[in-house]
Amino acid sequence: MHKNLENGLYLIGGGPGDPELITVKAQRVLKNADVILFDNLINRDLLEIAKESCKKVYVGKQPYGNYMPQEEIHQLIAAYCSQDRVVVRLKGGDPYIFGRGYEEVLYAAALGIKSFYVPGISSMQTTGLHGIPLTHRGVSESIWVITGTKKDGCLSADLSCAINSKATVIIYMGMKKLREIAEVYRSAGLSEMPAAIIQHGSLPQERKVICTAGKLELAAKNAGLSYPAILVIGAVVQVGQQATEVKLHSA
Amino acid sequence: MHKNLENGLYLIGGGPGDPELITVKAQRVLKNADVILFDNLINRDLLEIAKESCKKVYVGKQPYGNYMPQEEIHQLIAAYCSQDRVVVRLKGGDPYIFGRGYEEVLYAAALGIKSFYVPGISSMQTTGLHGIPLTHRGVSESIWVITGTKKDGCLSADLSCAINSKATVIIYMGMKKLREIAEVYRSAGLSEMPAAIIQHGSLPQERKVICTAGKLELAAKNAGLSYPAILVIGAVVQVGQQATEVKLHSA
Repeated sequence: MHKNLENGLYLIGGGPGDPELITVKAQRVLKNADVILFDNLINRDLLEIAKESCKKVYVGKQPYGNYMPQEEIHQLIAAYCSQDRVVVRLKGGDPYIFGRGYEEVLYAAALGIKSFYVPGISSMQTTGLHGIPLTHRGVSESIWVITGTKKDGCLSADLSCAINSKATVIIYMGMKKLREIAEVYRSAGLSEMPAAIIQHGSLPQERKVICTAGKLELAAKNAGLSYPAILVIGAVVQVGQQATEVKLHSA
Repeated sequence: MHKNLENGLYLIGGGPGDPELITVKAQRVLKNADVILFDNLINRDLLEIAKESCKKVYVGKQPYGNYMPQEEIHQLIAAYCSQDRVVVRLKGGDPYIFGRGYEEVLYAAALGIKSFYVPGISSMQTTGLHGIPLTHRGVSESIWVITGTKKDGCLSADLSCAINSKATVIIYMGMKKLREIAEVYRSAGLSEMPAAIIQHGSLPQERKVICTAGKLELAAKNAGLSYPAILVIGAVVQVGQQATEVKLHSA
């Protein structure tokens, strides 16, 4: 372990929200950062880890809303890295799980800037804080992790493959596609598949609703859930409910 | 945050190997543990975090080899938790991603023992340390995470679904199924799909080989790779190779 970090671009997973759910390595890099370019979904408490002289720059994207174009973020990376500094790019969850992190690494590489990656806990893992394991022997043989919002705005066709498997289906950024997602399940005769929506997983304001795949939209509406949230669809949701007598507390 | 932890069973993700890739929360719980029941794949350095009086019990499973039956682990959980203590169950990666963690939670719940879950970095995330993002816009729309070894020892049929999608396919515990996996791809006319095998990801002795799906077995043999390792198959493997001029260092 280098105690003095090399200059370059540090792509860091900020985890799902709870500031204690970043890695020890991420914490060490944040302590030594000269610049932090941070996203909207980052817990601002993480910025407090940095030294006083650290420059903190918001480059956030509101989910579904206006955001700083990726090109502008690239330009900031180029500008700060040219000053021979430890430049942190702090993203929610894990930068390589629907985080667009690798685009920034490729951009940096083209300029000869070294990149370093520190993975983060992804928001799908917060299902466990709500008593829903991602896999469970004899119940789920795989996990299929899909984004609800592709580059072209469409729902991924992969969902139609996923529902014909024994996979636990996880959908990121799916809250504006609930009607379409429910329809995919209904059309396949799988309306009754257990489902859950978890908003702000791991944060004090976290909320969960248990429903069925065919009623995702209605359940979200009735519970008043919004984004950022993840969807989990599959038999593991039901397994989890077996242990509800003993609430799984967050440590 | 409670400074004094409640008594109960703490299911903790020990991450992929690098001891700095555990969460800050996991580190805090380990510091306060009275008992740690730990698996084979755990980095032993993590045990050093615990206080001197902490009892450390190996309940490891050798991959594919003899192991302590789950029932014996359950009995140890019952015995130690009955003594009103902070009992940590430390597992490699994330306990709920092919970790069988929830079986232990259900067992504990049946005895009225409280369980707490702390997620961990899963070994699939170490692909990023080797310049392979799990997703990349326009290249991969989803991630399919499969175990190569099911309860019944068979290769999951879900793999045949997965290869017909745009998913990045990740296979855990697949090193004894390389021939079968390659055959699934060959039969589908997808021999040339880029693939990588990463052994001991995030540890100093980590090793990687890049190949194609049709030649997984040969590539592993030629490179002398063995388990524990993960397989990643999909176009993201090739995207990653675009930046090889600038090596992605581990921080």
